[in-house]
This record gives sequence, C-alpha cells and structure tokens, in this order.
Amino acid sequence: MHRAHPFPNYASRSAREPVSTPEPMETAAPTLYDAPPMPKKKAKEAPVEPRRRATAETLAERQREISVSEFFTKNRHLLGFDSPLKALLTAVKEAVDNSLDACEEAGVLPEIVVEITPTGEDRFKVSVEDNGPGIVKDQIPKVFGKLLYGSKFHKLSQTRGQQGIGISAACMYGQLTTAKPVRIVSRTGKRSPAYEILMSIDTARNKADLHDERTIEWPREHGTRVEIEMEARYQKGLRSVDMYLKQTAISNPHLTLAYVDPGGERIVYARSTRELPPETVEIKPHPHGVELGILLAMLKETGARSLSGFLQEEFVRVGRKVAEEICTNAKLSAKAYPTRIAREEAAALHAAIQRTKISSPPTDCIAPIGEDLILAGLKKEIEADFYAAITRPPAVYRGNPFQIEVGIAYGRPGGVGLELTAEGRITKKKAGKETSEDLVANADEPIRILRYANRVPLLYQQAACAITKSVIQTNWRAYGLQHPKGALPLGPCALLVHIASVWVPFTSESKEAIASYPEIARELRLGLQECGRRMGAYVRKGKRLRAEYDKRSYIEMYIPHIGIALQEILDLSDPERDGTVKTLEDVLHKSRKF
Amino acid sequence: MHRAHPFPNYASRSAREPVSTPEPMETAAPTLYDAPPMPKKKAKEAPVEPRRRATAETLAERQREISVSEFFTKNRHLLGFDSPLKALLTAVKEAVDNSLDACEEAGVLPEIVVEITPTGEDRFKVSVEDNGPGIVKDQIPKVFGKLLYGSKFHKLSQTRGQQGIGISAACMYGQLTTAKPVRIVSRTGKRSPAYEILMSIDTARNKADLHDERTIEWPREHGTRVEIEMEARYQKGLRSVDMYLKQTAISNPHLTLAYVDPGGERIVYARSTRELPPETVEIKPHPHGVELGILLAMLKETGARSLSGFLQEEFVRVGRKVAEEICTNAKLSAKAYPTRIAREEAAALHAAIQRTKISSPPTDCIAPIGEDLILAGLKKEIEADFYAAITRPPAVYRGNPFQIEVGIAYGRPGGVGLELTAEGRITKKKAGKETSEDLVANADEPIRILRYANRVPLLYQQAACAITKSVIQTNWRAYGLQHPKGALPLGPCALLVHIASVWVPFTSESKEAIASYPEIARELRLGLQECGRRMGAYVRKGKRLRAEYDKRSYIEMYIPHIGIALQEILDLSDPERDGTVKTLEDVLHKSRKF
Repeated sequence: MHRAHPFPNYASRSAREPVSTPEPMETAAPTLYDAPPMPKKKAKEAPVEPRRRATAETLAERQREISVSEFFTKNRHLLGFDSPLKALLTAVKEAVDNSLDACEEAGVLPEIVVEITPTGEDRFKVSVEDNGPGIVKDQIPKVFGKLLYGSKFHKLSQTRGQQGIGISAACMYGQLTTAKPVRIVSRTGKRSPAYEILMSIDTARNKADLHDERTIEWPREHGTRVEIEMEARYQKGLRSVDMYLKQTAISNPHLTLAYVDPGGERIVYARSTRELPPETVEIKPHPHGVELGILLAMLKETGARSLSGFLQEEFVRVGRKVAEEICTNAKLSAKAYPTRIAREEAAALHAAIQRTKISSPPTDCIAPIGEDLILAGLKKEIEADFYAAITRPPAVYRGNPFQIEVGIAYGRPGGVGLELTAEGRITKKKAGKETSEDLVANADEPIRILRYANRVPLLYQQAACAITKSVIQTNWRAYGLQHPKGALPLGPCALLVHIASVWVPFTSESKEAIASYPEIARELRLGLQECGRRMGAYVRKGKRLRAEYDKRSYIEMYIPHIGIALQEILDLSDPERDGTVKTLEDVLHKSRKF
Repeated sequence: MHRAHPFPNYASRSAREPVSTPEPMETAAPTLYDAPPMPKKKAKEAPVEPRRRATAETLAERQREISVSEFFTKNRHLLGFDSPLKALLTAVKEAVDNSLDACEEAGVLPEIVVEITPTGEDRFKVSVEDNGPGIVKDQIPKVFGKLLYGSKFHKLSQTRGQQGIGISAACMYGQLTTAKPVRIVSRTGKRSPAYEILMSIDTARNKADLHDERTIEWPREHGTRVEIEMEARYQKGLRSVDMYLKQTAISNPHLTLAYVDPGGERIVYARSTRELPPETVEIKPHPHGVELGILLAMLKETGARSLSGFLQEEFVRVGRKVAEEICTNAKLSAKAYPTRIAREEAAALHAAIQRTKISSPPTDCIAPIGEDLILAGLKKEIEADFYAAITRPPAVYRGNPFQIEVGIAYGRPGGVGLELTAEGRITKKKAGKETSEDLVANADEPIRILRYANRVPLLYQQAACAITKSVIQTNWRAYGLQHPKGALPLGPCALLVHIASVWVPFTSESKEAIASYPEIARELRLGLQECGRRMGAYVRKGKRLRAEYDKRSYIEMYIPHIGIALQEILDLSDPERDGTVKTLEDVLHKSRKF
C-alpha cells in the first residue's frame, strides 16, 4: 500500500531499516537470535543522521497533559453517554441519584420532579428538581462544572454517587451536543435567596465557565433544580427513563417522585413510608483491606505521634490491644514515630496486619432496604402471584463492608395461574393485562432481573454484571424453573438483587455493572439460593395444582357420562342421576390431598 | 435497625421529617399528590433550626477535588489491575505497546525483551526493554509518573496507546502493592548518556516523585527499559502473558521479541519480515464526526481568519468549494471571522455540515496488517489444515476511519483430518500433539477468537466485545460449523479479528473490549461472512472427503469378498482374482468426483 509520506525527504525504503543495533546485553537480557548485523559506516561519507521517522526530541514535543474533561469527552461512552438513547437515561439517573443522596444526607424526605421536554428534533431538556438542602453558591460551578470533584469519593459510606463525575458529565454532554449552557437554581434555606446560574464547562481546563448569575424568586424554601438541554432519543421499554424511575420508586419507598414524560403525561410515584433510610455512618478503612502503598502514604500524612496511636486513629476495629499486637508481630515499637517508619518497616507492618486477627468492620455503615420494604415495593409495582425477600447479613470484600438483598416475584396473574379456593376447589384465576413494560417475564422467556447498587437501578451491561453471573450459576432447576445451561433461567419471574456497600466496585465509570469479587459472588449465591428455595416450594405446589386441575378436568368431562350410564344401569330418575353425579364429584375432590 | 448517630442532638425521630415543604411550582412542575402539609410553627416557641442531619454548608465543606491518580487507585479494576493475575498481563501489555509505538514512530525495527522475575511470594519484577528512540530525560517522570499525559491522545492516528494512562498506571500499581520505586533507563542516541531514574508516584498530586537520577553505562545505543516490581500471580493459559506475547508476535511480524518467563525459560519470536508497517498519517477530524460543542470550541481557538479558511484548515476533505458550499448552506458568509461566530450561527454551521456531501476521510491513516502477513502469522504460530484471511476496505464511524481484518485457521492436524493425495487417494493424516495452549479449539468446543485492536491482542472481557457479538450473530451453520443459538460456534477453528482505527472505542480504560458501534458491527459481519464462506467450501469438501472415505472403507471391506465370489463364479486363478480386485478398486475410485 502506498502512502503519502509527511516527511518526504525521509520516505526512502531504508527509513524502515533499524537505525542501529544494540549489542546483546550483558545483563539477563537474552541474545536476540536474529539480531541484524551492525550497520557499517561507509568510510568516505560524512556521518549521516539516522534516517528516523521521529526522534526522542520530536516525540517529546508532542507530549501533553490531558485534561480529565477532554479525556471523558472523547471517551464519553465510558460515562454512559454512548448513544442518544442511553444519554437521556444517564443524565436523569445522575441528577436523581444526587438529589436522593443530598436529601438523605440532610435528613429531608425526598420529593423529586423529573421532566423531559422535547425542544427540537432529537433534542430534549432534562430538568430534575429536588427539595434537598441546596448547594451553596460558590460550590455550584464546581459540582456541575468540574469532573472529579465531590464529597463522596474520599469517605467510606453508602451513597449513590461515589466518583464526583456523573452530573458534570451530563452537563458536559449537553454542551457537547447542543452548545447550550446548563441552568441551575439552588436555595439553601428560607433566609437565603435562590440563585440562578447559567454555565458551561471549559473542557480544556476542567472548570466551569459562568455565563450569568443572579438571584430569583423561587417557591421552594430549599432545594436544587438542574436543567440540561441535550441531543437524545426517548423510547419506552426495559431500559428507559420510565423503567429507571419505576425501579427507583421500588428501592426508595421513602421517595415521592413526579415524572412528566416527553408526551406531557404525568406519573407520580407516591412514597409508601415516611421513614428515611437509617443514616449511615462513615467508617474508617479496615486494616485488612489496606495496601502497602496506601499504608505508607497514611504513615506519612498522619497526625498521630506513635505507631500504636496511628493504627487506632486511622483504622476501624483497632484498639490499643490489637495495635500493640500488630506492632509486636511487626517487630516494631508501638511508640515509634509514624512519619519515620521506613519502607521496609512499613512492609513488615503490612505483613503483620495480615497475620493479626482483627474483627470484621462494623456494619452500621450500610443501610439495606430491608425485607419488608422490598416486599412492599415489589407488591406495589409488580403484579405477581408469589413474593419473597431476603436480606443477607453484612459481609466484607477487600476491607469494604457490603450486604446483599434478594427479592423475588413469581407468576403472572395474566398467565396460567391456578388457585385453591377456600372450599378446596382449584380454579383458574382471572387474567390480568400484559404490557411490554411488565417486569415479570412470560413463562417461556428468560426471567427479568432488577439489579440495584446502593438503591440505584442498573439498566445496562447486564451480561457483564456479577449479579447476572450469579443468577446464571445458580441451579434454578432445583426450584422448578427451566434453566438452559450457561443462560438465564426461563419463567414468569422477576428477581430483585441489591448490593449495598460503602464502595461498590463498578466495572466502569458509567456504573452499570458490578465487578465479580469472590466474596460478593458468594453472598449473591447464598441470597439467590434462599429466595429460590422459597419460590421452589411455591412453584412445586403450583405444579401439583396443575396436575390436579388436569385430573379434575378429566373427571368433570367423564362424570356426566358415568352418570348417564348409571342412570341406565340402575334405572335412576334425572334428579337421582344428578344427585349421584354431584356426590361422586365431591367424594373424588375430597379424596385428594393438598 | 438502630445506629449510633454522629450528631446525637439531632437524632430524634423528627429529624426524618421533611424540614419544610415547597409550594407546588407555578411552572410545569406537577403537584406532588401526597405532598405533606406545611409544618406550622408553634407561636410561643423561639424559631427552631431545622433538625437536619447536614446542611448545604456542612455538605460544602466536604467537597473536594479528586486527583485522577487517586481516582484510578481506588478504581484500579477500570485499568485492568483488578487481580494479581491480570495485573501482570496488563503491566507487560502497557509497556510492550508503548515500546512498539515508539519504535514504529521512530522508524526502528523493534526488538523487545520482556522478563518476568520472581522476587518473593506473589511478587514479580516486570522488565521491558526496547531499542526504540528513547525518552528525553525531562519527559521520563511525566511519561511514567503522571496519569493522563501523553502524545497520542490529542491526535487522530493509529497507535496502540491512546489515553496516556497505561504505563503510569502500571507503575502506580507496583508502588501500591510493593511500595518500591520503579526503575527506568533510557538513552536517546549514542551521543547522549543513558539515564537511570528511580521514581514513585505522588498519587494525591498526580506527579512523579524522583528518588534518584544518574547517568550509567548502558550497552544500547538508544532505547528504554522499565522495571516495575509488583504483587502478581503468574499462570499459563489462554489469558496469560505467554499467550499475549504469542499473539503479539502474530500481529506484529516485524517484531523480534525475547521473553524470559518466571521459570527462567527463554522464548524468542523472531521477526518474519524486515518491513515496518507503513507509517500512518495523522489526520484532522472529519467534519461529519464533529459535535456542536467541539465545533464551537474549535471556532474559538482557530488561527484562521475566515470561516472558509477555518473549515479548510481544521478539517480533512474540505477544500474551498466544499467550504463555500457549507457556508452557503448555513447562510453564513465564507469571510466571517471565526472567533466572532455566535452559538446560533455555529449551530447553523453544524447542521449545514451534516447536510453537505463531503468525501469520506482518507485511509492512509490506517495500517492494516494485510492478508499476506495475517496468513503468514497464523501459519507460523497455529498448526491447522486450512487458512484464509480478509482485509476489508476502510470504513468510517463517527468521523473516524477504521478497517476490519479477519483471519481463520481451521482443522486440527491432530484431529480427524483427511487429505486427498496427489494420486487421488484419501488418507488419514498424521496426528499432531495437542496442548492446553493450542489456539485452535477441539471439535466439540467453542471456536477460539483472537481479538486485536491496532495490533494489540485483547485477552479479557471477550463477552463484552463487539467482535464476539458479531461472531455470535453470524450464521456459522451455513459454513459447516455447529452453532448453538446465542453462543459461539463449535469446531476446530481459530478466528483472528483485527480492528485498526485512528481511535478505537474501547469499553473501558483497560482497553479489553470494543464498543459496538453499528458501522463497526457491519464491517465485522461482512468480514466474518467472507472468511466463513471460504472456510465453508473447505469444510464441505472435508465432509465430502469423509463421506467418500467411509464409502471407500466399505468398498475396501467388501471388494475382497466380491473377488472371491467372482473367482468361484468365473473360475479365476489367484493372480487373475487379485488383478480383477485391483481393477475394480481403481475404477470405483476414479468414478468419484472431487
């Protein structure tokens, strides 16, 4: 293939020859078997500059720092903005997650209004407004205009946001596709004015660019409203904004959410409890989860004046006794000055920590939804025949506490349901309606999985998620479902799986799937199995009912004929025949066991 | 669940009541149906501070900037450092990718030495040394010690690296797990000294922390060596360092690679061509791929003094005629001053660009491996019966040129192969040996896929990759393979798929899988189908051979009996009988068509 060469002088064939060949290294480097011979300089020629395409110097000139905003603009699919359809969902999700976090941090029962308004072809304005604590004026440009800025990254506590990227990324995407500034209104209390700020993001510098700032009249006493105009596509379905909001209402029963969809239709999810999730405590890191490099950095920065004090102050679950045990194991003085600990000593300390028995981290840093509220949420939003929910005890991965919850809804009221009446009769149930947005799958379809991380529904990247992998690896045949090998089980069933943690290990910045740490996979398996067993009992009962129902159909089909035959044989009157048939039916029904 | 409250004064139940309730908004915000009533102040009491958990002010105090190194330390699974096994591969890969890029940029035939040395339990030193152009001294701390720093991010050209993260991340991981500095040796030419630098990374500031710097004797005239000690695990297999290097040799036939594995065994992959890949040209962005926000930023920063000049200078495929057509379509003057273009005018310009017909971007910015070299590479490293390779013509996604290549190796010489001899006889082939690292699968296993992006093998996240999805969606039954629905086809087959592009859309920073853009999926499908058809012809021939072979077995089994019968019937002598049998066999063999 011939190509125009940007430096024509150098475009000769020999430009592709090696410039020179190193001697085989004296160190461990092996001899390269086919190392080309050293090029010999021709004696008569003046020394020739190597015919390089580029040199270290020209390469150095091209080196540049990359702003984190530039990086994510070019890689915006990492943040969930890879298609107009997904961009809409991601923007709504980032804003709603922030609103919920802020309300809970402030102890306010959240009321959120989400509005999606078409503003042109493939264009929408996304507005999210909350009654949270508001944002102080100086912080607004940073919160919405700077990637990698926030309050949740540096602490270990269960929040929806954790990266300091999401909402700024949404603003950046809006600006990228429409070049319009975002509008933010925020008020921190009735004694403060409401500020309205119009701003865009200077991606080369990763900072906000203010267009306008003023105080306005705003009916809310406190809260925040963000409006982003963006190129997007709206579509209903399993991965839509509508579905995200519905699932958010399930996992946040304390939330009242109003949603105005692009068609102007209003949906309100009213809260079912006035109790906020328990406030979660921020924890210090657990010693077993700390890496040597981090330990060394902590030793350098601590204010503690002894090694023992350092261990007690900077870590959870380390009292004086444990601290001294660690120091003894490390052969270091408990009184050693932390900032003077050398690398080798830190390595000994790190090894000693691993060898010392230390209690698991406390678990009041995690707020699971709870079995009752999961059941209530499932029942409120999903029509099914059978429900169960499990909250597993907390566990730990890499020093981070986490907790798994599993809920299950089985059976489609619209489907093939049978029920046992109070009189002991089996009857077919009334059919409900089926819609494309039903969360319970049809009998011959893969079951639906509602994945949640810290109460946030995860709608994309199902295949890459530890939750899905655990569902696939569970043996659902044991619980009465069809289950093709290596795939999701089939059946009229919806599974809700929630991981709550002080640090959720997402597989990408877009926070769509959970990385498969062994400890997490184990808890998922146990939770799924327990829910599966409960459902299995119900499914088997359903199968027995079905078998009985089929038998009964036969009986009901043939008994009248038996009646006629008996009438002829025994010469019965019509009422005698009907009475006999009735008695026969009752006797046969009663003889069955449930 | 009861929890200790960090602010005990505020821990009453009412802290969970909303502080206040906003009036329904006058704007489009819908009334919240269950909005709680406004709390009434009791007249006698002094005004009470809202019983909040936190206020906007306390929340503001917690807000902080997050350094990109801190972010990726905590999220290191995003960079491919989630397990000790993968960390080893990722570190080798990042270093080798950089070496190859540097050699090619400098026009040097690459010679790379990779060494993995055990230094303790679960600890290895990874050393990668190349004969590239070297790195000028001032740049070394930035290249190895600063995330988001590099020369490849800001240009559109086909390189292995593109983010400015990889090698710094490897250094950061080494430091995190062993707290040891990394060692770098680099020399830019025989007239310069070789520098040795020991450094670590200051993650809070995202910059290098120099420990030591000196000049040393180094036998190479130019090149770079990096040594990183890290916690890791070494294991052979399909996703091992060994496999990565083997696959790298296949896709880089101009590379000579020496590898010293942790056991001290030396493997050398010698180059099979002395021709470097053609130098790829850096291109400017194509107008059809530019977003409005980017366009606006470009207008602000250009040095061009007219709109027409701006379009011609900043974009590829825009000459004066096209530039003027765009301006006319946008109802803007071609002489307008670019920096004075307002947002609405820029939007009109953006829309006009989409409406204007502009040639596809040039394709000399892409260097595919080429059909011949793919075949050569496959034949050199994979033992199989049948090979084919396709290089598709270049195509474009989001303004970025890319090109798909597919290679296939079919049949295991150790397996059930049959061949047609020159004399027209079908014989069973000699069996080869099977090893666990064979790249061709067994007949009843899913086929193996060797995925490549810009010549770099991708070993992880196969399920999440556009390449895998396209393989699954292709109908392999048509080409003679078994193909379960929704899964990989089965058969003794290895597929090599390469995407070359000026910007590969990876699904994460760890660059393990390719995002599924429709244009890319389409090219993949066409490439796979074409290779599949060629293989299909061979597979069918194999099946025909098999059928014939079976028939021949029957013939050979029965012809002697026929011979004996004929001998009796026709009263033949033994030689006459043998002659007849031979003739009969020949006639029957010849009557078959291949």
